[in-house]
Amino acid sequence: MINKVLVANRGEIAVRIMRACREMGIETVAVYSIADKDALHVKLADEAVCIGKAQPKDSYLNIESIITAAVLTGADAIHPGFGFLSENAKFARICRECNIKFIGPSPEMIEAMGDKARARQMMIEAEVPVVPGSDGIIEKVSEAKGLAREVGYPVILKAVAGGGGRGMRIVWQEEELEKAFNTASNEALSAFGDGSMYLEKYIVEPRHIEFQILGDAYGNVVHLGERDCSMQRRHQKVIEEAPSPCISEELREEMGKAAIKAAKAAEYENAGTIEFILDKDKNFYFIEMNTRIQVEHPVTEMITGIDLIKEQLRIASGKKLSFTSEDIQIKGHAIECRINAENPAMNFRPCAGKITELHLPGGRGVRVDTAIYPGYNVPPTYDSMLAKIIAYGDNREEALSIMRRALAEIVVEGIDTNIEFQYDLIHTKEFDKGHFDTSFIEKNLEVILGEE
Amino acid sequence: MINKVLVANRGEIAVRIMRACREMGIETVAVYSIADKDALHVKLADEAVCIGKAQPKDSYLNIESIITAAVLTGADAIHPGFGFLSENAKFARICRECNIKFIGPSPEMIEAMGDKARARQMMIEAEVPVVPGSDGIIEKVSEAKGLAREVGYPVILKAVAGGGGRGMRIVWQEEELEKAFNTASNEALSAFGDGSMYLEKYIVEPRHIEFQILGDAYGNVVHLGERDCSMQRRHQKVIEEAPSPCISEELREEMGKAAIKAAKAAEYENAGTIEFILDKDKNFYFIEMNTRIQVEHPVTEMITGIDLIKEQLRIASGKKLSFTSEDIQIKGHAIECRINAENPAMNFRPCAGKITELHLPGGRGVRVDTAIYPGYNVPPTYDSMLAKIIAYGDNREEALSIMRRALAEIVVEGIDTNIEFQYDLIHTKEFDKGHFDTSFIEKNLEVILGEE
Repeated sequence: MINKVLVANRGEIAVRIMRACREMGIETVAVYSIADKDALHVKLADEAVCIGKAQPKDSYLNIESIITAAVLTGADAIHPGFGFLSENAKFARICRECNIKFIGPSPEMIEAMGDKARARQMMIEAEVPVVPGSDGIIEKVSEAKGLAREVGYPVILKAVAGGGGRGMRIVWQEEELEKAFNTASNEALSAFGDGSMYLEKYIVEPRHIEFQILGDAYGNVVHLGERDCSMQRRHQKVIEEAPSPCISEELREEMGKAAIKAAKAAEYENAGTIEFILDKDKNFYFIEMNTRIQVEHPVTEMITGIDLIKEQLRIASGKKLSFTSEDIQIKGHAIECRINAENPAMNFRPCAGKITELHLPGGRGVRVDTAIYPGYNVPPTYDSMLAKIIAYGDNREEALSIMRRALAEIVVEGIDTNIEFQYDLIHTKEFDKGHFDTSFIEKNLEVILGEE
Repeated sequence: MINKVLVANRGEIAVRIMRACREMGIETVAVYSIADKDALHVKLADEAVCIGKAQPKDSYLNIESIITAAVLTGADAIHPGFGFLSENAKFARICRECNIKFIGPSPEMIEAMGDKARARQMMIEAEVPVVPGSDGIIEKVSEAKGLAREVGYPVILKAVAGGGGRGMRIVWQEEELEKAFNTASNEALSAFGDGSMYLEKYIVEPRHIEFQILGDAYGNVVHLGERDCSMQRRHQKVIEEAPSPCISEELREEMGKAAIKAAKAAEYENAGTIEFILDKDKNFYFIEMNTRIQVEHPVTEMITGIDLIKEQLRIASGKKLSFTSEDIQIKGHAIECRINAENPAMNFRPCAGKITELHLPGGRGVRVDTAIYPGYNVPPTYDSMLAKIIAYGDNREEALSIMRRALAEIVVEGIDTNIEFQYDLIHTKEFDKGHFDTSFIEKNLEVILGEE
């Protein structure tokens, strides 16, 4: 069994991991940058080591400092949390070489899943549906036309070197294809110096559905149901919930089987997430696998009763999973709202500063995961997430009513937050009904902001 | 359905009730004394009415002011919480006369259960076991001897007018009885002017086990399992948990049946509690029925998933219970620690004052029910309870580990609290094993305090 865990992270996820360790009788080591010397994760750890300057590259991304801290404190395992080094294969490899258990999958697995083309190929071989499209670069318009006919319109053309929407075109019918291909390719060539294009089926009204996976060292893999993370803004999740309000029991079973197939194909160990995109006709396609714990893991914990961090620690200790997918009982409904230090009215500009007043909601059905406290100074250097408010109820209606009252109670003064934005968002009729896709916030931003 | 509830209480229970109302879309009215003008329950209510001076008799016990506030605000129901007017039959009767729904049982029922002799008689008739003893006053030593032989030693002699241990004697064998009877009776006579005595079987190593009951207006009664409230100090509960660590499934079933029999005999409506005393040989006896919601109701909510306040509101609205005792699934284990403003080292002297710093625990498995906030001034006038920390886990071991880490995280500065005392208490080997009776704190006080 693991005796001492170094948590190579900060903020609420570091606190979350330390709480699980403490409950299991495992000692904890915090690492922190000088900007985080008063951070809660430092206060809650049994030991704490300063690993460098505020900038992540000098501290939370500084592999050498972190490994040194682990060796000096005698930590026999490292939990990377999410972000930072959590999907860094090199870091996982160095841990292994230093005889420190990296709490997560093998470096090989991180590498395989980090290479999107390789992951896609692996899923095709495992017969997990992927978004139909070209397996690599498309050389000519004629080739694009043939493939578009095969996968069906609309399709999306993307520059291999693209980003930020440049070199990207949605094509609704064949007549538009040639022009779109040429202009997008030229745009990419002038913007990135590379005009190479690929093509994919364009998913209409997409929902983001992901399955939580646990795999042990003995080849056992279970899924813990899905999370619906369709409420996004610029690919950042804003609200997550479980179960999804748009998935039937039959579809859950089908997608769950695909998720397990995907994880088994990867011989996946520890906690991971299989992300799918779901179109309006309920076709689903694998997008990617996240080889780490995720921000939104609490909604799964609420509906299954399973502590995912404790399971990660047990798996990393070489324990067998103590349950099968069939043993997992999904009960009730959970919703998570991310509370960020940002100003929605000013294009969600992140902000920093001192929290002068703080009142967090409590009572039945409310879980708060946070690392803030009254008087805490939010540094400008890191992620803007301040807290996760999780509401759990007998069903979606109750969970939503609990979230509404929880967001009405919360008080954070001294810095800008998105609390009012979240409050307005969960009061929209679309959220109420569960009818929204990943573009909802973008398309309705002014209306939502207008509510304030 | 009820539209607007006046909450005739303060502190965390007022907040608890308002949260449930808000989640159900019911409007809320707070009443408050001038000492409570900055209280959280006032801030969270839709409307608030000041009903008088700080002293309870001038405000929270002032029936006239409260009824006036209800009439003026158009509240169609009053929730009395616990303490104050919650078991006041006169208040319930006035509510009824004013066409305001009292959320609780009928005044007749409150009266019947408030009269301990009448309640005892009712239970004997319903064949619910009561503590064996004299049904009223014992005139002579010879009568006491005969009865003591019948119920078996040890027995306890109590002065009818007694209190604070005066006029009370525990008798372990017949030879001691005569002397004990005479001295106790004389003691009572000189202390209270009344030497009348009664006799009961003395329960050795008693545990306090209570069953949560819900009854609707249609004669349906269910129980929601037991709470173990054996960790007490001077008859005040300190820690409560559910399920009890000392009850088998068979005993739970047997006691549950007795609890339902008791509630049905009383034709009980709304939420109530049947309190039993359990001796070391697992014999159980009815002590009393509490005709209101209780402080420790959250532990039952955690293991059953049922919101007791919402059920109270539904029952008061004339709804039928939507489940039977068989439908109720008990899952996991919950422990509640009461955090009080008091100094354990100074004989638990209550204290008041400003909370200068506050950090409440959160994360998986932690529920906090409180009405305090940073900067809040704890008035000297009311109950010393500041917060209830509830830990919920898969089993008792996990719940306890969660409580231990939660109590390690909590910070309350500016006033004295019993946090360290609670922390030490839950670290005793007796609590760890679940082996303790209602005298545990008293007998081990110095050892527990010595841990600090």
